[in-house]
Formats: sequence, structure tokens, C-alpha cells
Amino acid sequence: MGPGPINADPRVLRAMSAQLVGQYDPWMTDTMNEVMDLYRQVFVTDNVHTMVVDGTSRAGIEAALVSLLEPGDRVLVPIFGRFGHLLAEICRRAGAEVHTIETEWGRVFTEEALEAAISDVSPKVVAIVHGDTSTTVAQPLEGLGDLCEKHGALLYTDATATLGGNEFRVDEWGIDVATSGLQKCLGGPSGSAPVTFSERAAAVIEGRKSIEEGIRDVGDPVSAHPIRSNYLDMAQIFDYWSERRLNHHTEATTMLFGARECARILLQEGLAESWTRHQLHGRAMLDGTTALGLEPFGELAYKMTNIVGVKIPDGVNADAVRGAMLEDFGIEIGTSFGPLHGKIWRIGTMGYNARTDAVLQTLASLETVLRRAGHRAPAGAGVDAAYEVYGASA
Amino acid sequence: MGPGPINADPRVLRAMSAQLVGQYDPWMTDTMNEVMDLYRQVFVTDNVHTMVVDGTSRAGIEAALVSLLEPGDRVLVPIFGRFGHLLAEICRRAGAEVHTIETEWGRVFTEEALEAAISDVSPKVVAIVHGDTSTTVAQPLEGLGDLCEKHGALLYTDATATLGGNEFRVDEWGIDVATSGLQKCLGGPSGSAPVTFSERAAAVIEGRKSIEEGIRDVGDPVSAHPIRSNYLDMAQIFDYWSERRLNHHTEATTMLFGARECARILLQEGLAESWTRHQLHGRAMLDGTTALGLEPFGELAYKMTNIVGVKIPDGVNADAVRGAMLEDFGIEIGTSFGPLHGKIWRIGTMGYNARTDAVLQTLASLETVLRRAGHRAPAGAGVDAAYEVYGASA
Repeated sequence: MGPGPINADPRVLRAMSAQLVGQYDPWMTDTMNEVMDLYRQVFVTDNVHTMVVDGTSRAGIEAALVSLLEPGDRVLVPIFGRFGHLLAEICRRAGAEVHTIETEWGRVFTEEALEAAISDVSPKVVAIVHGDTSTTVAQPLEGLGDLCEKHGALLYTDATATLGGNEFRVDEWGIDVATSGLQKCLGGPSGSAPVTFSERAAAVIEGRKSIEEGIRDVGDPVSAHPIRSNYLDMAQIFDYWSERRLNHHTEATTMLFGARECARILLQEGLAESWTRHQLHGRAMLDGTTALGLEPFGELAYKMTNIVGVKIPDGVNADAVRGAMLEDFGIEIGTSFGPLHGKIWRIGTMGYNARTDAVLQTLASLETVLRRAGHRAPAGAGVDAAYEVYGASA
Repeated sequence: MGPGPINADPRVLRAMSAQLVGQYDPWMTDTMNEVMDLYRQVFVTDNVHTMVVDGTSRAGIEAALVSLLEPGDRVLVPIFGRFGHLLAEICRRAGAEVHTIETEWGRVFTEEALEAAISDVSPKVVAIVHGDTSTTVAQPLEGLGDLCEKHGALLYTDATATLGGNEFRVDEWGIDVATSGLQKCLGGPSGSAPVTFSERAAAVIEGRKSIEEGIRDVGDPVSAHPIRSNYLDMAQIFDYWSERRLNHHTEATTMLFGARECARILLQEGLAESWTRHQLHGRAMLDGTTALGLEPFGELAYKMTNIVGVKIPDGVNADAVRGAMLEDFGIEIGTSFGPLHGKIWRIGTMGYNARTDAVLQTLASLETVLRRAGHRAPAGAGVDAAYEVYGASA
């Protein structure tokens, strides 16, 4: 019940035990096409360039940014948590000219602040996290796509922590590039990064294409300034996933099967239904922890559905509480990074773990552990508050 | 029965259906330590810095090279196939000054040719493929480590296609850095790249360390010229796998379980026993295809144990033969790249597929398909020749 990775859906794990198939077997290439189609639905987009990158969500982030940004390109990164810093770091290593604005952790940016910065910097790319798990809040993205377009910028969004459990609409919100991972609301393991690129973003990347040595044909493009990474070169990855089936990496078949099953389960439930389910269980956990006398962290109006941050009460040994939860009750909860390390706990309700029994067990266990750590709350208050949420929704 | 990926060992797939565990759970960190220890045995090394990179074998190659090479560093890449070109490509994108020597595909370099080039270029790194699956031959590496040390160079080797099925000894052969993948002789899926670094190589990388924004502590190193990739930054990956457990990517748990099982199965059999098994079945496939009237490709003295290359006979429709093998017999065989595309077939006998029944079924099926394609061989000749090899070894 931490901020992710979380328990995988058993159906995903079962799908990942299927035997491998050769990477150019027609069944395999059909499966790759099916994965593209499934993730178009998950991202709510018609983008042709929708696929998975073979690596963790961080590989998807870097693949997007290193493929979009040439050395010297200006990028604006609004930072409201640990993962905004990560975007800035990745852009710097790509050689970009990085401009940042920051807000206090737990808050988000106003549209005015974002527009002022975009207007000031005139970036090629605005790179922003959707929900930053380190702070448990999500930046509203509606309207930002229009702002970026108005100022000639591409909008990149990291949806690792939100996709599948929070409303997220690539086309409607004018997002040019979004990347994610399986290990949060999608209920799978880390190691495969769904990504999507608008035609505008894909054109920028295609313009930098350089087919690698060893398989380059006469007439294939060779750039004097190719994308700096070969493994994370989206131009070549586009070709690998296209009808050309350009040889690049060897697709991570087992992770592909996992990514496919995550999307199938999500779409079988329904996107809107999953968003509602995450909201319900997130609300139950929020009300439950509040009833246990734990003060919520961050601007609740912008709280992610799938994670709750609570301030660690004075006088309680934070590590001992997390230790007892894990060792005695088999339940993992997290702390956070940087200014919030040791200051808040983070409790997730996402993917397969956005379930009534998981929420009630966590609250009952937490009450017990807190009581033994010297923090008192009315007996059963957490569970009762959660039941109230479930009753109200029934 | 292609050049890889191949069928995974069912035990590996079963291990990959295990439920996830949080990334800082003591059981998980113990498991990571266990994986380090297992791959030390697989690489035959005492290197502390032995772990897996979360991506395909190509991610391991790029992680090693981009972490070792700074822009402007000289690197020597001896090329004898498609994957040598890939190493050169990755080094170029890392900004290195790339020097290459080439030999005809199907041949290897003499020690004299290598020493002359090393002496001429004075590279920081010599980057060479061990077995280049595109040509089915392996470069002898004994002695090359000493040569590199004598000339002050680090030796990097890509052992993706050979590890586990061909003799490979990191410490004894003086290899500084080796990287691999699971999808060849290790009998697992693509998506996790075992890597190992000598103290000398690790020191070069540690010297470039820059802890990323968002988790950087007071006193942590910040380099003006950090490793160009964040995802493939081995300095930070070392810290993630060290007792410090520096937060970096979220370990791809399911792939880790797969990597662990691949190594356990291999070491349970015994490294030397696995090398012998690959040699036996590779020899049976070589003799079998020869008996079917197919001329072997490449210098047989340097043939990899786990793959056979044969010239496609005149007058036979190469694609139709591969198609019938796959569609009618469910057996995949490969062609190759560049100058060998459409000129040779490549048949693998590796990992879980280095088995008597897999070899005999392939030869019997190939005889049938070739006969129907107009290529005649004495009835049963392929199977008989393979039986001869097995009999001789019994």
C-alpha cells in the first residue's frame, strides 16, 4: 500500500508466464499492434505513435525528452516535487537549456504562473509531471495544451503515477507527449513504459532520425546531430513498431504481455469506472486516516485519487511505525523525499490495491500500530470513516 | 530455433509469475544481492559491481559505454558483424572519438591486428563483441585483456549472444566490463541486462558521478560533465544496488525474478556443463545441416557453440523455406543482416532449445521443407548425422 510499485493484478502475472514468440513472428507483430491500439484507448488518443518503451517509467521519460530536445534547445520545467526535479535533470543531461519555476511541495501552479513562465522563456518544450507521487498532488492540465500551442511549445507530461486511476485525456487536453509505467494504477510490474506522441511531436523526432550503422540502407537518413541515445532513440523505436519493423532492440516479450494484460483489464473495467474506483478508495483512505487523527498533507483540491499523504504525528517514531506495518502486518507504506522525508507517510490505493479489503485492512492495522506507538485515536475510527465513504457510495 | 530470442525455460516463466515485493522491502534487497552474487558466478568474476540493468541487452551496452566514455574520448571498435557496428554507433552517440577496424563478416581478428590497432589509436576503451550472432563467429578474447592493460585501455565486451553457452571468463581474461541479456543462452526473455565492471572500470565511472536533482544531499557529487544519460547512468545504478540504496529507477521486479531464475538454472546445471551441452547440440546441428547439403558459413574454428550459419542453396526460395518452417512446422529460423541478408540462414541451439529433441525435430522438418522447395538430400541424412554426434558423445 505504498506509493508504488504495488501488488500486481494476478491476471497480469499469469499473462507474463506465457511462452515467448519470435520478434518477427506474425502473431508477435499482431500483438505489438494490439498493444498500440490498447494504449491509444488508455491514453484517450488517436496518436499513431503510441507504444511501449522497454524499460521502467524513467526510460520512457528519457526516451521522450532526449528524442525531442537537441543540445541548446530551451525547455521549461515547472517543478512541484521530486519528479519535476528529475525531468529537469534528464533535460540537462540531454544538453538542453533548462528553465525551471518551482512551487512549494504539496501545491500546484496557477494557469497564470504557467503562462507567464512560458511567455517569458519561449521554450521548445514544456515538461511537467501530471501527478507527482512525492507530494501526492496533481497539476491540472486542462488548458495547458492550448497555452503551449499558443506559444509554439510542445507539451510533455509524465503520467507515470496517474494513468489509469486519474482522469487523463491526451487529445482533449492537447498533450503532445505523455509517458507512463505499469507499476502504479495499471496494476503491473515496473519495466515497460507506455508512451504516446502527437503528429507534431513525432514530426520533430522524425526530423532528427538517423538509422544506425549495421542496418542502414542506401537512402536512409544519417544526421550529423543524431538523437544522443541509441537505446532510447524514439525515431528508431517508431520504425521498429511500424510496418517497416526496423531491427532495433529485441522487444521484451514478457513485459509486452504484461503491458497488454494491464490495458485489457483496465479497459474491460472501463476507464471512467477505474477513475471512479480510485477516487472512491482514495477518499476512503483519506477519511480513514483523518479519523485516526492524521493530518492530510498538500492541497486536497488537487489530491491525486490514488495516494494519500499524511503528516507524521509528533512524538511517534516514524520508522518504527513503518517497520511494524511491514514486518507484523505485511503492509508497506512509504515516506517521501527531500523536504518531506520523515515528515509525511504516503499510502497508496492504486491498481489492484484500490480495493475495499485492502483499504480496511490497512486502516485497522495502522490504528493498532499507531496505538502501540503512543498515538491514540478513537477505537475503530479509521475503519468506520472508510465504511462511511463506502456506504455513501453504495 | 532462430538466433534469439528463443523459447524461455518454463521454470523462468513460472518464476516471473511471482507476486511483486516493494523495492526497499528487506526481502527484495536481499534478492537483489542474491542476483549480484549469482551473476558473479555466471560471469566468473569477483567484481563487486555486478548487477542487472533494466532494459534489453542493448540497454546494458549503452549503459556501459555512455558511462565509461566522455565526449572526445578515444575508443577502438573492431567490427566483424552487425553488432560491432552497433557498438560504434552507440560510442558515436556518446560523443566519443570512434576508431574502427573491420574484417570480412564470418572471420575474426588476429591478435596482431588487434595489437597494431590498439597501439595506433591508444584508446581509452576497446569495445568488442564476443560472439556476433549476425555472422555466427566469436572473437577469441584470451590475451586481449593483457594487451589492453599494456596499452592503458579498458576492455569492454558484449557477451549478449555467448554468455552461458560459450566459455567466458571475465576475471581470467582481464575483461573490464561485460554486458549481456537473458534471451540467448540464458533461456529467458529479453528485458534485463546482466552487467559486470572491474574495480578499474568502476573507478572511472565513479569519478564521473553526479547525483540527480531531487534526491541530492549536501556533499553529494555534482559533475559539470555528468554521464549523458540519467536512466543508463551506471554511477547512480551502482548506488541503487549498494547498501546506500539510492533511489533511481524502480527495479523491474518481474524481470529481476526472471534474471535470478535464469542464473539459478544455469548454475544448477554447472557452467562448464552448459558450455559442453551447447557445444554438443551446436555440433549436431552443424553436422546435420551439412549432411542436408547445406554449406556452413564462416570460419568454423571460431564458430559460436549456439548458432549455425548455412549458405542458402541456389535456386531455393529462401523466404518460402523460412515461411513453411514457421507456418507448417512451428519452427523459426533466421536470416541475417547487411551483406548476409538473404544469403545465409541462422539456426540457433541455445538455452532451453539446446536439446536433442529440438535439434532432431528441426533437422527432420528442414529436410522436408527443403525437399518440397526443390533441394534434395539423402533421406534422413540430417537426423542421422545428428544422431552420430549424440552417439559419439554417449
